[in-house]
Amino acid sequence: MATKPRARAIITLLTDFGVQDAYVACLKGVILGLNPAAALIDLTHAVPPQDRRRGALILAGAAPYFPPGTIHLAVVDPGVGSGRRGLAAHCRGQFWVGPDNGLFHLAWSQDPDLEIVSLENPRFFRPQVAATFHGRDIFAPVAAHLSLGVRLGQFGPAITDPVSLGFPEPTFGPAAIHGEVIYVDRFGNLVSNVRAAALNSWAKGQGLHFQVGRIQISGLARTYNDVAPGEFLALAGSHGYLEIACNLGNAAGRGRARVGDSLTIRKE
Amino acid sequence: MATKPRARAIITLLTDFGVQDAYVACLKGVILGLNPAAALIDLTHAVPPQDRRRGALILAGAAPYFPPGTIHLAVVDPGVGSGRRGLAAHCRGQFWVGPDNGLFHLAWSQDPDLEIVSLENPRFFRPQVAATFHGRDIFAPVAAHLSLGVRLGQFGPAITDPVSLGFPEPTFGPAAIHGEVIYVDRFGNLVSNVRAAALNSWAKGQGLHFQVGRIQISGLARTYNDVAPGEFLALAGSHGYLEIACNLGNAAGRGRARVGDSLTIRKE
Amino acid sequence: MATKPRARAIITLLTDFGVQDAYVACLKGVILGLNPAAALIDLTHAVPPQDRRRGALILAGAAPYFPPGTIHLAVVDPGVGSGRRGLAAHCRGQFWVGPDNGLFHLAWSQDPDLEIVSLENPRFFRPQVAATFHGRDIFAPVAAHLSLGVRLGQFGPAITDPVSLGFPEPTFGPAAIHGEVIYVDRFGNLVSNVRAAALNSWAKGQGLHFQVGRIQISGLARTYNDVAPGEFLALAGSHGYLEIACNLGNAAGRGRARVGDSLTIRKE
Repeated sequence: MATKPRARAIITLLTDFGVQDAYVACLKGVILGLNPAAALIDLTHAVPPQDRRRGALILAGAAPYFPPGTIHLAVVDPGVGSGRRGLAAHCRGQFWVGPDNGLFHLAWSQDPDLEIVSLENPRFFRPQVAATFHGRDIFAPVAAHLSLGVRLGQFGPAITDPVSLGFPEPTFGPAAIHGEVIYVDRFGNLVSNVRAAALNSWAKGQGLHFQVGRIQISGLARTYNDVAPGEFLALAGSHGYLEIACNLGNAAGRGRARVGDSLTIRKE
Repeated sequence: MATKPRARAIITLLTDFGVQDAYVACLKGVILGLNPAAALIDLTHAVPPQDRRRGALILAGAAPYFPPGTIHLAVVDPGVGSGRRGLAAHCRGQFWVGPDNGLFHLAWSQDPDLEIVSLENPRFFRPQVAATFHGRDIFAPVAAHLSLGVRLGQFGPAITDPVSLGFPEPTFGPAAIHGEVIYVDRFGNLVSNVRAAALNSWAKGQGLHFQVGRIQISGLARTYNDVAPGEFLALAGSHGYLEIACNLGNAAGRGRARVGDSLTIRKE
Repeated sequence: MATKPRARAIITLLTDFGVQDAYVACLKGVILGLNPAAALIDLTHAVPPQDRRRGALILAGAAPYFPPGTIHLAVVDPGVGSGRRGLAAHCRGQFWVGPDNGLFHLAWSQDPDLEIVSLENPRFFRPQVAATFHGRDIFAPVAAHLSLGVRLGQFGPAITDPVSLGFPEPTFGPAAIHGEVIYVDRFGNLVSNVRAAALNSWAKGQGLHFQVGRIQISGLARTYNDVAPGEFLALAGSHGYLEIACNLGNAAGRGRARVGDSLTIRKE
């Protein structure tokens, strides 16, 4: 069995476990027991319980900044213990391990070289698998074995039909774009589902007007300081999506806006 | 003085310090100043201030998943600066460092090979010991020296009377078990003090009925998906204790249950 | 170009990003992509949004406990995208990277050997610099390059006029010291701006009386247990400042005290 140890492999962890219990530590202990040299990096453990969309957005937002070969272990797993499959995959030069429930949908989208296997080889699981904690007993040891050089095909058969997770798509009309707020970050910035690049193509250099609920904004800004403190602005956020923000303030709080609110963009 | 450096020793940290202040980072800085190769893993820092029971439960729940030789540094220390002893110990193949106040009671229970020393050799402390922060000035450097191979006996004299921490024990009668909720996790799962293995022995295959306050459950489930979304269930949790949960919901919130609530289990 | 790789450099991270989004992970991914051997240690990411004072206090409190050569990456950056400079510095044997907005003011104060450069060499930035996220695109890669041995002067020209951040200073009169609460920690301890060493010099062995709002304390304690449970006390805190605390309780909560409250110290 060909295995190729990787020097100080990076394994990221994303879960909805929070950090007040010992669950995240259990994952880390299991990994370090198999590969003591792994570098463990938390993406976040504050995904709201069972919120696969939120997990998918964070994962897709962070992964591109990690080096090739990074292993992303993600566990937001409301279907644990049901029949849902566990997956390991190779995509965009990185590895991915977790439940087959759409959590990787955004991160994997549009990669023609995506390879996925269903985790069926118990040799790479912990000897006892609890029906309620596959993160600890299946996904963590699989991620550790990947970091030790075990090849994807050894974990189970290839599959090509991972579960999808529908995200709302914006509609681009001649006069307006209709999108929505899909994420509110810690600063109260409203991240929309409208890609900044697509917006620029559509606008063809014309002035733009933005509306989310009571928030009305004229013109696209480059950075927060382009407007006075306390004023709203629209800008291309650091992940490539249009965001509505408030300079030195909290746009969600001031504008009483939240995930799911409609965003309308018109040419002025 | 025989010291045996350990390659990339794992040191876990459990405290009630929270993460908004610099206290946890101070522990880590002190350790890395002595052993830059140590791998530092947070168990949790969200133990409620001075709640030794909660700390003891998390420590006992996470430690078994870490490899032999792991050093567990735990600081929930309401008695800092009083006469309470500091301890280092070897138990179940791992090392333990922290105050003598029962924090390790659960993790150490029933190990006949437990060895404990009282931390009395200031050579392994920081030169200045603040009366209010032994975590930084005594426990962290002792953990770091342990990771460098200093032997237990060098830290101080052996002791055999560590402080105990009483935990409520369930009572097993012929008709009913009376236990209680000892932990509520992030998902609202109610962890009881009834070990799943003991429950199975007692039930002898008969059907079971569970009650915690307003929550009534008939039958033991294997996993969350055994019941409909929003319904309560009883199952053997991932740490080996009976838990009351709610499929895709929060049992504590829905059932208005909390730590200390009585659990009654009857044969049907 | 002389570069001197450092074995397992330590890079600390302090931000106001919180941990629910992917922002902190992005910093870490960028660093590990450049230096996979870096040890990444979180100081805290719970600085209140844009609160440079709080960030400065935590940074100055934690840094002395880290070994020489540690690199402190700090990003509390309300002025991102405006003209404010980015800095890298060497001070007290450690390195510092972040925005020029006073965040390092306390940590750097009174070091005659302070060296600072303005970050102007885009060779050490990410190829695309987002106007809203210099932490990821400028500061993280600069910290990583520092950890690989790039010398300070290669990042840009030396400067000697970093932005200051005014902190309230106590006034020492013959009969009284007038200070204030500058920090409330997780335990509710009220950290003042009066250095314990300065207080001792002033007191010349006389008894002392302390007042913060409704809290009145007679005499200086050595540790929490010097008073009965629930009682207030004044003591030299672990960072060297006078603190008002409550044994086994929360002084801020019980005394309804907060940052900015006046502290008066009189001789008895």
